[in-house]
Amino acid sequence: MRAVQVPRAGGDLELVERELPTPGRGEVRVRVQACGVCHSDMFAKEGVLPATPFPIVPGHEIVGTVDEVGPDVLGAWSTGDRVGVGWFGGACHHCDPCRRGDFITCENGRIPGVTFDGGYAEAVVVPADALAHVPAELSPEEAAPLMCAGVTTYHALRESPARPGDRVAVQGVGGLGHLGIQFAARMGFEVIAVSRGREKEDLARKLGAHQYVDSEATDPGQALAEMGGVTVALATATSGEAISALIPGLDRRGQLLVVGAAESPLQVDAMSLIGPAAGITGHPSGTSMDSEDTLRFARLTDVRPMIETLPLERAAEAYDRMINNDARFRMVLTTGQ
Amino acid sequence: MRAVQVPRAGGDLELVERELPTPGRGEVRVRVQACGVCHSDMFAKEGVLPATPFPIVPGHEIVGTVDEVGPDVLGAWSTGDRVGVGWFGGACHHCDPCRRGDFITCENGRIPGVTFDGGYAEAVVVPADALAHVPAELSPEEAAPLMCAGVTTYHALRESPARPGDRVAVQGVGGLGHLGIQFAARMGFEVIAVSRGREKEDLARKLGAHQYVDSEATDPGQALAEMGGVTVALATATSGEAISALIPGLDRRGQLLVVGAAESPLQVDAMSLIGPAAGITGHPSGTSMDSEDTLRFARLTDVRPMIETLPLERAAEAYDRMINNDARFRMVLTTGQ
Amino acid sequence: MRAVQVPRAGGDLELVERELPTPGRGEVRVRVQACGVCHSDMFAKEGVLPATPFPIVPGHEIVGTVDEVGPDVLGAWSTGDRVGVGWFGGACHHCDPCRRGDFITCENGRIPGVTFDGGYAEAVVVPADALAHVPAELSPEEAAPLMCAGVTTYHALRESPARPGDRVAVQGVGGLGHLGIQFAARMGFEVIAVSRGREKEDLARKLGAHQYVDSEATDPGQALAEMGGVTVALATATSGEAISALIPGLDRRGQLLVVGAAESPLQVDAMSLIGPAAGITGHPSGTSMDSEDTLRFARLTDVRPMIETLPLERAAEAYDRMINNDARFRMVLTTGQ
Amino acid sequence: MRAVQVPRAGGDLELVERELPTPGRGEVRVRVQACGVCHSDMFAKEGVLPATPFPIVPGHEIVGTVDEVGPDVLGAWSTGDRVGVGWFGGACHHCDPCRRGDFITCENGRIPGVTFDGGYAEAVVVPADALAHVPAELSPEEAAPLMCAGVTTYHALRESPARPGDRVAVQGVGGLGHLGIQFAARMGFEVIAVSRGREKEDLARKLGAHQYVDSEATDPGQALAEMGGVTVALATATSGEAISALIPGLDRRGQLLVVGAAESPLQVDAMSLIGPAAGITGHPSGTSMDSEDTLRFARLTDVRPMIETLPLERAAEAYDRMINNDARFRMVLTTGQ
Repeated sequence: MRAVQVPRAGGDLELVERELPTPGRGEVRVRVQACGVCHSDMFAKEGVLPATPFPIVPGHEIVGTVDEVGPDVLGAWSTGDRVGVGWFGGACHHCDPCRRGDFITCENGRIPGVTFDGGYAEAVVVPADALAHVPAELSPEEAAPLMCAGVTTYHALRESPARPGDRVAVQGVGGLGHLGIQFAARMGFEVIAVSRGREKEDLARKLGAHQYVDSEATDPGQALAEMGGVTVALATATSGEAISALIPGLDRRGQLLVVGAAESPLQVDAMSLIGPAAGITGHPSGTSMDSEDTLRFARLTDVRPMIETLPLERAAEAYDRMINNDARFRMVLTTGQ
Repeated sequence: MRAVQVPRAGGDLELVERELPTPGRGEVRVRVQACGVCHSDMFAKEGVLPATPFPIVPGHEIVGTVDEVGPDVLGAWSTGDRVGVGWFGGACHHCDPCRRGDFITCENGRIPGVTFDGGYAEAVVVPADALAHVPAELSPEEAAPLMCAGVTTYHALRESPARPGDRVAVQGVGGLGHLGIQFAARMGFEVIAVSRGREKEDLARKLGAHQYVDSEATDPGQALAEMGGVTVALATATSGEAISALIPGLDRRGQLLVVGAAESPLQVDAMSLIGPAAGITGHPSGTSMDSEDTLRFARLTDVRPMIETLPLERAAEAYDRMINNDARFRMVLTTGQ
Repeated sequence: MRAVQVPRAGGDLELVERELPTPGRGEVRVRVQACGVCHSDMFAKEGVLPATPFPIVPGHEIVGTVDEVGPDVLGAWSTGDRVGVGWFGGACHHCDPCRRGDFITCENGRIPGVTFDGGYAEAVVVPADALAHVPAELSPEEAAPLMCAGVTTYHALRESPARPGDRVAVQGVGGLGHLGIQFAARMGFEVIAVSRGREKEDLARKLGAHQYVDSEATDPGQALAEMGGVTVALATATSGEAISALIPGLDRRGQLLVVGAAESPLQVDAMSLIGPAAGITGHPSGTSMDSEDTLRFARLTDVRPMIETLPLERAAEAYDRMINNDARFRMVLTTGQ
Repeated sequence: MRAVQVPRAGGDLELVERELPTPGRGEVRVRVQACGVCHSDMFAKEGVLPATPFPIVPGHEIVGTVDEVGPDVLGAWSTGDRVGVGWFGGACHHCDPCRRGDFITCENGRIPGVTFDGGYAEAVVVPADALAHVPAELSPEEAAPLMCAGVTTYHALRESPARPGDRVAVQGVGGLGHLGIQFAARMGFEVIAVSRGREKEDLARKLGAHQYVDSEATDPGQALAEMGGVTVALATATSGEAISALIPGLDRRGQLLVVGAAESPLQVDAMSLIGPAAGITGHPSGTSMDSEDTLRFARLTDVRPMIETLPLERAAEAYDRMINNDARFRMVLTTGQ
């Protein structure tokens, strides 16, 4: 048996006991040690995605140990291996993107907590290709948020046109942003944190930001332009309007990186892109290898998430803190395993 | 003396006589043979740009011969050389973008017909760095539209992520689009023309399109997606709505190329970019070297604009045909020189 | 039973009967219609690679129809499907390169005619991920050489820094070169064929070359430099000396593409790369998706190999014509199936 | 008058007095504060380059203040500005590479100490486009070596395919290498220093190297391969043999960066590049803007050269220490101005 959190019809999370599932072909069962609480867990909790079965166990920032290896698993995964699973929950390996090796755009991609039961649980079963090795130097609680918030920001910055020494803006000092600032600083960028109000300035600087823009007191696009423009702006805001406001701050050949589902569409003036030959790019999370790269980089350069932990039983409370923006900055559920 | 067309206060173009200007330091006087009529000539004719002096001679698709070389001109420009000038009217060579060699994003860039008198004239004076060599194999009338409509579409496609064999959509079969289709086909792309109605299908196919989407009869984004998605969509529409409609037709890692000032903002759903890791990029016209590349490619692969010519005196009529979308597809003024 | 050609101890090919093999997990049996004869078949015939079992059936330019689908095959392969297999004979899907989707650099990659029995046979068994769909518009004989000679040249050019309109040199007018010239021309490059003597000039021009350099009469590097330098030089020569001779012909930011095992090392003067910021890149063949792209491009732009066909029984003769450089330009074995 | 060092016929440097030169059109006179001593100063001292007039004042790692601004200088250079000049001594602005903005490959590029009198002097006259702003936070002595050794290594790494977290090897812990290690570490790479013997290991680690390979005790290419291969190897050795030895250590898609004139040609086995799809790229120094980027990055991330200073009068001694590999690690001449 295993304890899992599932949303009830009304929407509240509830701890229930379930059969311990057996890994099928190509699958692995992971004993969960920690699971981060991400804004996208809302899809599971609210049951809003048509493709998502209801109820489903949320959670896609999973760290634990391999518990049982199913038949026909490729690669040398063994019981006891420390592993992580993120938004990327395995690819089909036969659609065209997969045949090109572009697993993250797989047409049949699976997602923990969205297409199968996720990590708000004592154990999960996942496809082996969704597994990332987690180095021993990182605790499960620290590693968990790197599996989604971490890989998303690290990978987007790494793939961006910014080169060491370039100015990079990170919008938002929250679950994603507080990691984005750290990553950007350790990549050798000149980092400008953009956030509302002045309260987060000290923290942003401590995390590595060289400059700070208060987007309540000033127009952030204009402020960035006055600093010379940024090669890359990593947008973690959830409003299309707030994201679009960064565009005038892009330097020539600059890029706005969009990594999160915004609640409203971006409004883009064509001339604001044409003049500086600038662009906007969407960045999906990252594969399990991208997660391994993220963990390696975090270890190499001492990037760590700021977390608050709660035991699995208190998932509802953790979720509420996250959804109300009270978390500083990532809630992590722990199982004590 | 030289004849030039200038807009009167009411907005109509009028032929007047002006002193023949003398080229200053680093400048060259060009005897105009042909000048294309571009939608952006509206800026000059209507006097809508605050930075544009009024009245100013419109025209930035200029082809002619070098008439007089001013002092301190760099490079081996000689009287009689066949040359062209486009939207790029010279760079300052001391701002940061210029010092990086990115002349097209020069902070002090000049534009014929916008910041100085353009090519609706028997003669123009231009900075020497705005000059492109025009090969003898191209007539002045054919070469003129390549200086803006041509370089804009050629350069945007060339710099795009599309590789030979990839699917590329060209939206619009007009002044830019009819060149874009030709360029795309000769670059080895599988070309899909997107236009309203069925009238232009035959022509689009003759120009090199392999497939055709009628955007009145079907949603173009969906139609492109059903064909497998396009690596690049070159948008030449002037409505932000029409441009945005292409985004769902992008293949994974696809890019929407925006090359023209749209009258309304693009509406971009973040998820439509994130899922496929797709993007939007602005493409300014191109430098004089990009124009030379365009002309070389046109000569190499037999790309030619479809034009209607009128003598310089009938500029008003040519402008009207253009602005009313009656031109098939580019109006070109000729001087008979 | 199936007829196969195997090298005898002395090195000659011999037709023998073998059991019809049964496809294992993830494998497919292909009824061979045509198989190209490549210079690398020497590895099998001479038994020179330590990793190659002896005797092994040569052949890695295979086209045929799916005959039997083994268990657990991913993707919708069905009996009767027209398919091709090239140098890429399947990836392991669990080494690091595979987990990154870079199948062609798989640490455990398989190769027909090198690590398992190849296509000099009436039937072969191959991993399903090695299969490429072959469009009906291409005959088996025409498609076969595209599976190695084709994909190698197409893919190297496609991935190169050359952009439409750029100058591209193709060294050698042989099995690879005669395809490289066609591909390069249809990608919109200005193509310069480089070969010894003048005999192949007419053919090279017919295939699409715009210029020709006789490397016996003139130093090819210098000749290319005098033409302005090339953005890309595709080297298909087998002597390191001949390949290195192209380097001085590279334009600034130019690249020498190395695609074939040269018999002697390249000699590279550091300054010849530093001054023009030029480079040398190795290009392995291509995955099954790259092969599909090659076939699509060949169909789209009418690229066809020049072939001589012989029935499977006369493999020894075909091999001899190839190894003696008598083939014009690719020998293809046919089975009449 | 100004004191300068010039090589006598026999090759020794000699301090002489010369007229204070007046800057011509587009030129600036710089009062030299410090000038680094680079291995390439040998060209001037030995008079070995046919294009180099003899005798010529060596020195291309110049830092000082603007002393007099000549006529027609573009940009806002003023007397007293702190500036630097490196290997890049100005471009012609009219050859094709210049018209494309690729100044470093200018066909008529000038070089201090090679095509005109360099920085072993109290004053130099240089083209204004060769000037880089030097931030006040860097002392002249510290900034000087960044103008050549610095920009060469920083720029090559920045333009390389390595992304944060990737493994990067730096070969040599000398004038270039000790800066390359620092830059690479601050760019977020996992840095492997490669040098002969064990003496430099401690220093290499202090500079930021995570690992160390003793190329006397072990084959460096094999050692790097066993660590998993490197995405980039920055070669600063002066022997072609030593540089080539790194190639087997490249990871798939890896690149060998060649930045210095090697005394013997590189020996490159084609297969060593084809298998891993690896490459070799030449990297010329960098423009004045690249130098500004280098200085900004050095300031941002606290990269500093290790230097030994000597007064201008003792240039011969400084040169000898450099040429005998006794410098730890860069000799810098100072003028006390």
